[in-house]
Amino acid sequence: MKFRRSGRLVDMTNYMLHHPHSLVPLTFFSEKYKSAKSSISEDLTIIKETFEQHGIGTLLTVPGAAGGVKFIPQVEANEALQFIDELCELMAKPERLLPGGYLYLTDILGNPSIVNKLGRLFATVFSNRKIDVVMTVATKGIPLAYAVAGQLGVPVVMVRKDSKVTEGSTVSINYVSGSSKRIQTMLLAKRSLKEGSNVLIIDDFMKAGGTINGMISLLEEFKANVAGIGVLVETEGVEERLVDEYVSLVKLTDVDTREKHIQVMAGTYLQFVKDKEIGED
Amino acid sequence: MKFRRSGRLVDMTNYMLHHPHSLVPLTFFSEKYKSAKSSISEDLTIIKETFEQHGIGTLLTVPGAAGGVKFIPQVEANEALQFIDELCELMAKPERLLPGGYLYLTDILGNPSIVNKLGRLFATVFSNRKIDVVMTVATKGIPLAYAVAGQLGVPVVMVRKDSKVTEGSTVSINYVSGSSKRIQTMLLAKRSLKEGSNVLIIDDFMKAGGTINGMISLLEEFKANVAGIGVLVETEGVEERLVDEYVSLVKLTDVDTREKHIQVMAGTYLQFVKDKEIGED
Repeated sequence: MKFRRSGRLVDMTNYMLHHPHSLVPLTFFSEKYKSAKSSISEDLTIIKETFEQHGIGTLLTVPGAAGGVKFIPQVEANEALQFIDELCELMAKPERLLPGGYLYLTDILGNPSIVNKLGRLFATVFSNRKIDVVMTVATKGIPLAYAVAGQLGVPVVMVRKDSKVTEGSTVSINYVSGSSKRIQTMLLAKRSLKEGSNVLIIDDFMKAGGTINGMISLLEEFKANVAGIGVLVETEGVEERLVDEYVSLVKLTDVDTREKHIQVMAGTYLQFVKDKEIGED
Repeated sequence: MKFRRSGRLVDMTNYMLHHPHSLVPLTFFSEKYKSAKSSISEDLTIIKETFEQHGIGTLLTVPGAAGGVKFIPQVEANEALQFIDELCELMAKPERLLPGGYLYLTDILGNPSIVNKLGRLFATVFSNRKIDVVMTVATKGIPLAYAVAGQLGVPVVMVRKDSKVTEGSTVSINYVSGSSKRIQTMLLAKRSLKEGSNVLIIDDFMKAGGTINGMISLLEEFKANVAGIGVLVETEGVEERLVDEYVSLVKLTDVDTREKHIQVMAGTYLQFVKDKEIGED
């Protein structure tokens, strides 16, 4: 009996981790393990306590006939703060400087373990919002968008700046790139987004916000709603920011290509998590 | 004491799942939980047995002073077969047909839960090979490449077909697209790949294999080795295939745009897993 509980705990932990934000009926587990619902409830209490104790997240219990249990990934504010500090340090290395004041971030965004952690951070801050889908624009934001979507248990839609024959009919808009002031085009496959969807916009970099503003215009074409905006890096010192409310992890406050100096500080993230409570969405 | 084991099992399961193919010393856990190594060993035995019983994977024990335990994700052949059958059915829907005989796959590749499962399948078939990095070409292969890399515990490098200013100096090659016979260019940031790396190539679609052949040429420029090739969909009926050994999940055997008929069958995957054993890499 002791072994059976042990085995259940391991398998249930695996299952819950792979199904975030999904309501799992208790009968699913009691049938899977041929165990009484009361035993399953005790197992879930142990998992919930361990998840909370080790900063993994929590389990929400939804009572009633249509009820069950839901895993909500949560990174604690302290751990987030520490991780953002590490990110700032990682990004401030002078060898990241590229011609034009750009930063080399390929190694950071190419590391699935860092990207998954970034995904957990964004999933934490947006865990209370109603989100049906995560949207990003090709190419660099894609891994981050998938990491966030994976932790929220929703799909991803990808906006493109070039038309591809392999997606069928598309809706396109023109937008003004905030920093270069050039007119550009972005498009989204018609059948990739349902009308009325609640959309979380995720991107790697925000300067003046032109690209994100473009995505917001595109959402209007689809009669979809902006559920939130999250970016990895924002830059400071842009005259008119086109986007108001957004969550950023880090803020680039100064890039001096002559002196090879980069200054990075924490973004708006911690303001958003400070007073947040875990609740039902 | 019973509760402490329960809590450890939940937290250790979470830790191992998030660190695939990484050697974790037993002291890491015994210090984390202030428990005897013998108790940790017993915990690991329970986790290993449960992982194997439920088709999650296995734990490899590496003995000695520099030893520890390593989680190897493994999808059982039966489960893989069933999933590939489901994929075939999903892909054969006539409404996927696009002009030019292309298939709409955006919904499949936009679903993190499907993509993660695809990642586990490829991580299973390549689990015995020495892999340092996963390579893909923008854009559609990116989510799949990250899913595979995440399960193998290695980074991703992204080849591009357009030059981006934000990655610094690049190495570029020309290649001939196998199906259209046009000459094209692909490039990779110089600092994104170390000489001598063992590289797993992952892509969503392979027709004649021109793009994958291009990636192989690019690897030669970096003095890197091809550790394996994995594609989600291959097409049949191409006169000369440019790539020999590859793992495909499904094979498109017939696309009839007039009759709106798509025929899909299992790819080469099952041949590769049939006689495979789990071992040290």
